[in-house]
Amino acid sequence: MVGSELRELFKLLGRPGLISFASGAPDADLFPVEALRGIMDDILCDPARARVALQYGVSEGYGPLRDLIAGKMTADGMRCEVENILIVNGAQQAVEFCSRLFLDPGAGVLVQNPSYLGALQAFRPWAPNYALLDWDGSAEPEAASCAMAYLMPRFHNPTGRHLDLQARMRVVSQARAWRLPVVEDDPYSELWFDGPPGPTLTAIDLDGKSMDEGRTIYCGSFAKTLAPGLRLGWLAAPRPLIERMTLFKQASDMHAGMLDQMAATDLLQGLPPDRMSAVRDRYRGRRDALVAALDRHLPPTIAWSRPEGGFFVLLTLPAGLDAAAIFPSAVEAGVAFAPGGSFHARGGGANTIRLSFSALDPGLFDQGIARLAPVLGAFC
Amino acid sequence: MVGSELRELFKLLGRPGLISFASGAPDADLFPVEALRGIMDDILCDPARARVALQYGVSEGYGPLRDLIAGKMTADGMRCEVENILIVNGAQQAVEFCSRLFLDPGAGVLVQNPSYLGALQAFRPWAPNYALLDWDGSAEPEAASCAMAYLMPRFHNPTGRHLDLQARMRVVSQARAWRLPVVEDDPYSELWFDGPPGPTLTAIDLDGKSMDEGRTIYCGSFAKTLAPGLRLGWLAAPRPLIERMTLFKQASDMHAGMLDQMAATDLLQGLPPDRMSAVRDRYRGRRDALVAALDRHLPPTIAWSRPEGGFFVLLTLPAGLDAAAIFPSAVEAGVAFAPGGSFHARGGGANTIRLSFSALDPGLFDQGIARLAPVLGAFC
Repeated sequence: MVGSELRELFKLLGRPGLISFASGAPDADLFPVEALRGIMDDILCDPARARVALQYGVSEGYGPLRDLIAGKMTADGMRCEVENILIVNGAQQAVEFCSRLFLDPGAGVLVQNPSYLGALQAFRPWAPNYALLDWDGSAEPEAASCAMAYLMPRFHNPTGRHLDLQARMRVVSQARAWRLPVVEDDPYSELWFDGPPGPTLTAIDLDGKSMDEGRTIYCGSFAKTLAPGLRLGWLAAPRPLIERMTLFKQASDMHAGMLDQMAATDLLQGLPPDRMSAVRDRYRGRRDALVAALDRHLPPTIAWSRPEGGFFVLLTLPAGLDAAAIFPSAVEAGVAFAPGGSFHARGGGANTIRLSFSALDPGLFDQGIARLAPVLGAFC
Repeated sequence: MVGSELRELFKLLGRPGLISFASGAPDADLFPVEALRGIMDDILCDPARARVALQYGVSEGYGPLRDLIAGKMTADGMRCEVENILIVNGAQQAVEFCSRLFLDPGAGVLVQNPSYLGALQAFRPWAPNYALLDWDGSAEPEAASCAMAYLMPRFHNPTGRHLDLQARMRVVSQARAWRLPVVEDDPYSELWFDGPPGPTLTAIDLDGKSMDEGRTIYCGSFAKTLAPGLRLGWLAAPRPLIERMTLFKQASDMHAGMLDQMAATDLLQGLPPDRMSAVRDRYRGRRDALVAALDRHLPPTIAWSRPEGGFFVLLTLPAGLDAAAIFPSAVEAGVAFAPGGSFHARGGGANTIRLSFSALDPGLFDQGIARLAPVLGAFC
């Protein structure tokens, strides 16, 4: 099952009463709607700002937003100047630009297994040969000749797991030995539940040096911390790479929306500093509720791990089962999930299921898993 | 001079007192700021709409916006259903997706000469072999084996010219004979000065049939009719092509900004119907002012044609001159332009200059051209 088929499957999710753990969307209750409303009004009431907000902008992105991001990256142990930052339409575009930069047809790509589906879709035009990274940070030998590594070390989609510090250090050190550029996709790192997520691969790689001296490209997103509808993310990389990717941006769609960029800048400066703590509390409560429901209802033949952050839990059914084939029975029983096969770069994983706890009322979790358990049980 | 070098050149345009005819941006005074302010407030005050506006959306685009566009296309002689429309981040992304769909390395592309620089940049990764179309609609023989035609028949960038009806019919008929897909880029067609622009290539090709039966892909933009900062445009094409390009959209950046799409939908429905007439009046006055200044100051050795729509006039200096080499002297004299060489797909055109009249105070046109004339005269 490829991503486009999954997308078609998801179109069946409109049926009334369905409890869906399929969508990875954030909780819309957490969007800073009131703050954004005031900010939009401020921008559009100020003639000088309104002219900038609605006009063409430069491909690099809105300067004050790039400044803010460079400051935040530096504070997080990744020393950046504004010239190290390119504003893109969400981390998806960041990953796509990295694939254009590093891949040729048939190139090797080192990935986790499973891996983020949207990234695998972005890589597909190059029909890459995948090498796999284990959770201990060790890689298949083919990694040494890969053109790029694509990794989500902190609260991974679709597993909710992370690479521990030792595994991260091992990856960084191997990548250095192999002269392998590492693309670090990090959309969930502020959504930690049991403690901060530790350093990024980029911070470990830089070890205090400037972004220009590293071999890691960092992909950031505002989709989970502000709102996905603004379609904003960023790339942080050594200057020569940012310059090349700025040309990709120019040829792709010229620049990110100026009004959205200006609004995001004001939001980042204006939102209360403890806001992310409330966001974390919300998702932590959901994680706990889903884990409790899984503990209560699932048979012991189904394995899963408790996520320490992010939006997802990955279930592993007994080998030989096919979650996509089970999907229609589940929908019939009034519950939906994302079949995990398409998240696996080299195939396999048909017996896995991604459950998202991010956007669903936790009052429905117990009922949803109670519906799912007998459907899975009938196959297990 | 390639586009990226032009971009670097343009960064010199900040000097105070410079009269710049270089930028092709629309006049910010015409942006519907007040209407947009009310619309943003309406969307963000309505909890149900705000949740949609800030959440992930589908890759095809916001349904009501696709509906509106399909209706407008149909009214303009291009019979579309909503499934024929894909929302993208401006016409630039539309053109880039077409290049991904039709081009392989070294493929042939039929273009006008000169042609839109942004399109040539989008095609560059394929290192295409260009065949050229003349203004009478006749093509070089290599066109017969091209993979795609890319044409801007109505108020062309950078010349302001258009293909007359006979030329358009000739192109469409040849493309049919050659089984050549035609990408029609049409951002300026509402900005006509001396009469409506006549039918699109798409309308001629369809001749009353549905979009699904044509061989033309239409690229539309809201940058000139609403505002570029919203970064919205669309592709209209036969369904199977829209389905493939929807996958490009998904892998590239998932979807266009939802808030921007909802706001554009409301703007298109709420703006007064005679608004475009006022917009045309504004740009027509500027065209007239620039043409008058050119008549007054330029020596007879410099040729240009009076644009019937759009934003641009192209000057042709005597053969052998290099506008890019003249550029620093012009900036020294307090006036700037876009050197025309980079708009020429197969090289040449170094002796051309693009002047834009769209974003500059027309009270400065006479002074600007009075500064430019002696600089050019010194080289002619």
